[in-house]
Amino acid sequence: MPVNLQPPVANQLQAVKGVRLGTAEAAIRKLNRRDLTLIELAEGSRAAGVFTQNRFCAAPVQVCKSHLALTAPRALVINTGVANAGTGEQGVANAKATCRAVAKELGIAAEAVLPFSTGVILEHLPVDKLVAGLPAAKAALKGDGWYEACHAIMTTDTLPKCASRQVDIDGQIVSFTGMSKGAGMIRPNMATMLGYLATDAKVAQPLLDQLVREAADLSFNSITVDGDTSTNDSFILIATGQVGEEIIDEASSEFQIIRAEVIELAQWLAQAIVRDGEGATKFMSIAVEGGKDRDECRKIAYAVAHSPLVKTAFFASDPNLGRILAAIGYAGVNDLDVNNLRVWLAGGGEEVLVAEQGGRAASYVEEAGARIMKNAEITVRVDLVRGDAAATVWTCDFSYDYVKINADYRS
Amino acid sequence: MPVNLQPPVANQLQAVKGVRLGTAEAAIRKLNRRDLTLIELAEGSRAAGVFTQNRFCAAPVQVCKSHLALTAPRALVINTGVANAGTGEQGVANAKATCRAVAKELGIAAEAVLPFSTGVILEHLPVDKLVAGLPAAKAALKGDGWYEACHAIMTTDTLPKCASRQVDIDGQIVSFTGMSKGAGMIRPNMATMLGYLATDAKVAQPLLDQLVREAADLSFNSITVDGDTSTNDSFILIATGQVGEEIIDEASSEFQIIRAEVIELAQWLAQAIVRDGEGATKFMSIAVEGGKDRDECRKIAYAVAHSPLVKTAFFASDPNLGRILAAIGYAGVNDLDVNNLRVWLAGGGEEVLVAEQGGRAASYVEEAGARIMKNAEITVRVDLVRGDAAATVWTCDFSYDYVKINADYRS
Repeated sequence: MPVNLQPPVANQLQAVKGVRLGTAEAAIRKLNRRDLTLIELAEGSRAAGVFTQNRFCAAPVQVCKSHLALTAPRALVINTGVANAGTGEQGVANAKATCRAVAKELGIAAEAVLPFSTGVILEHLPVDKLVAGLPAAKAALKGDGWYEACHAIMTTDTLPKCASRQVDIDGQIVSFTGMSKGAGMIRPNMATMLGYLATDAKVAQPLLDQLVREAADLSFNSITVDGDTSTNDSFILIATGQVGEEIIDEASSEFQIIRAEVIELAQWLAQAIVRDGEGATKFMSIAVEGGKDRDECRKIAYAVAHSPLVKTAFFASDPNLGRILAAIGYAGVNDLDVNNLRVWLAGGGEEVLVAEQGGRAASYVEEAGARIMKNAEITVRVDLVRGDAAATVWTCDFSYDYVKINADYRS
Repeated sequence: MPVNLQPPVANQLQAVKGVRLGTAEAAIRKLNRRDLTLIELAEGSRAAGVFTQNRFCAAPVQVCKSHLALTAPRALVINTGVANAGTGEQGVANAKATCRAVAKELGIAAEAVLPFSTGVILEHLPVDKLVAGLPAAKAALKGDGWYEACHAIMTTDTLPKCASRQVDIDGQIVSFTGMSKGAGMIRPNMATMLGYLATDAKVAQPLLDQLVREAADLSFNSITVDGDTSTNDSFILIATGQVGEEIIDEASSEFQIIRAEVIELAQWLAQAIVRDGEGATKFMSIAVEGGKDRDECRKIAYAVAHSPLVKTAFFASDPNLGRILAAIGYAGVNDLDVNNLRVWLAGGGEEVLVAEQGGRAASYVEEAGARIMKNAEITVRVDLVRGDAAATVWTCDFSYDYVKINADYRS
């Protein structure tokens, strides 16, 4: 049961001018499910991406990176069922063959195609099946194809994740639509977090390159379900350039509007993955402020977010301060003065100071903590009281079902 | 149910000349259980320790470190029930008051007393109750008191952990006895891994200081149950100097014998904690070899050992290579060539190559992996094929019971 996540409503998803999406059943691993998605971008579109840091970088990610470096993309092809990861040279050859087939179908260069795969790893991609499905996916291409596409990229997600925004920039309506998939940083063998966000604004390539990194840092790189990083993780930001003048100035109000919209939408897409996290019953925000730099805030936020002891305490609605303090203490910030920091628990519109001066806050009563922990959305706020930097990480709790899902997956 | 761990047999625990141990019921948190342990060391004894790296360093650990720096210890006092962690200045005052009381009881200096506490954190130590128990603990002091002591330091351990060794050095019998407690790096609120290892050999202080760090590195600092580091973790190595000549030369055969015995016994004590890990059903060794340095081997071993996806797969007896390879890939060794490394699974006297050249080994059949995974003790061996360094980390699997134990602990 996802935590406060609703499925998208088809007519609330905005088409993005210059983007058409089509899906098909290609029987890549299972019959009778849409497992192939084709996204066509108008000429003049630009894209930028961030990818997994895992040294086992899947074949499509390798090809995707090299194609992005060569030319502006005109198409994306996404398959589920097989991740094409841990497949060596044959895997790269298969990803490239997929791109050539898409290129032929659409009459574009193979280097203008970006390939993505998600599914079981250590198995080879059945390129023939994928290619056989392309004509149907091409025939289905349409501007309002996001609804079908966000379903077709799901693997073990319990709900599709897709949302839109529109904003008026200099009298023109600019649209932003994005979709994501993923339910653990690796869902068992079913690898991968994927995120796609498109706008029809015209954004200069250097700004787009900068924005995709900033947005990823504040969204997909600020979530964790189980601390595991997939071999296939990808986030692609697309600007088709169909609406408005080209935006080249980072300081312009136009770019600041686009920046804010992209970051907020990316955060929604990333948080949706946590809300649909394996076995999740609670959505937790770990907000660390007052740090010397963002890096130490992230270290502490991730230490709390990764601690199995903290996560099981949240599952049990137990305001277990000792576990939170211990995680802060071992986060690896070596000169941290634990006698100076403060910790709050917040939820249901209430915020309570729980720790200060190296121990339990004098004003804290456990009933208040217990009341907050009963909410489905809870924030742990930590003030390090030594600087102006801040960082927030989003995660979910750790339940019986997490073990069940991950222990039973292949048995 | 601990994995292949037997309780100690009283008459197999060797007295260590110069060490006497006594226990008592002090009702520190619960009635009718031995919760106070006193260890008296003969004059001339030396000790060295390693302690938690957690910034929330418990009050007794702070006092213990400062006392060790001042003088050679003559007594150790260990209480369960209350960890005296997250207790600020009052906690330090309580730990010092405990030392003064022990000093008075034994007629030694307060600085010659090392205090240790384990139990719930964020609560103050009831010093009066502890002090009231000291005469009984003193009256119980005896050379063969290890058996009672290893029971009295338990908190949520399901079995006591204590073992002995003897070795002939230059015609004299040198004894080594050690005990440990802990079942998670933090058992819920019941903080703490504690380890004590005593020998009656006479070891020069610089060698003892060096050996305690080396032995801890290869034992207590090479285990993980849940990745959480307690506020109270301590490991103390004692040499009473009652047997044989003083050993001052690191290269001497005498020191090499002692070194080997201490390391092996420390490893047994550390592994016993993993075998008794919360909800453990499997004992896993993650052995990484062929690395450039020990640090990168440890990084990779810990990434595999900490991965909830790997740990749940072992619980399910599922030879899930994808999860192991992914964990190796995200361990943070940035120039690792994943196409070059090799991975084996071993158990029940059988070892199988499972991965090479960036993917599944050509010779691997899943039946072999499944057969190995049914064993209670399993080794994941990784050869990085780029150097001579190696490191091994021991851990346990992640079961329903882990979540149950940690979610239910306070509710």
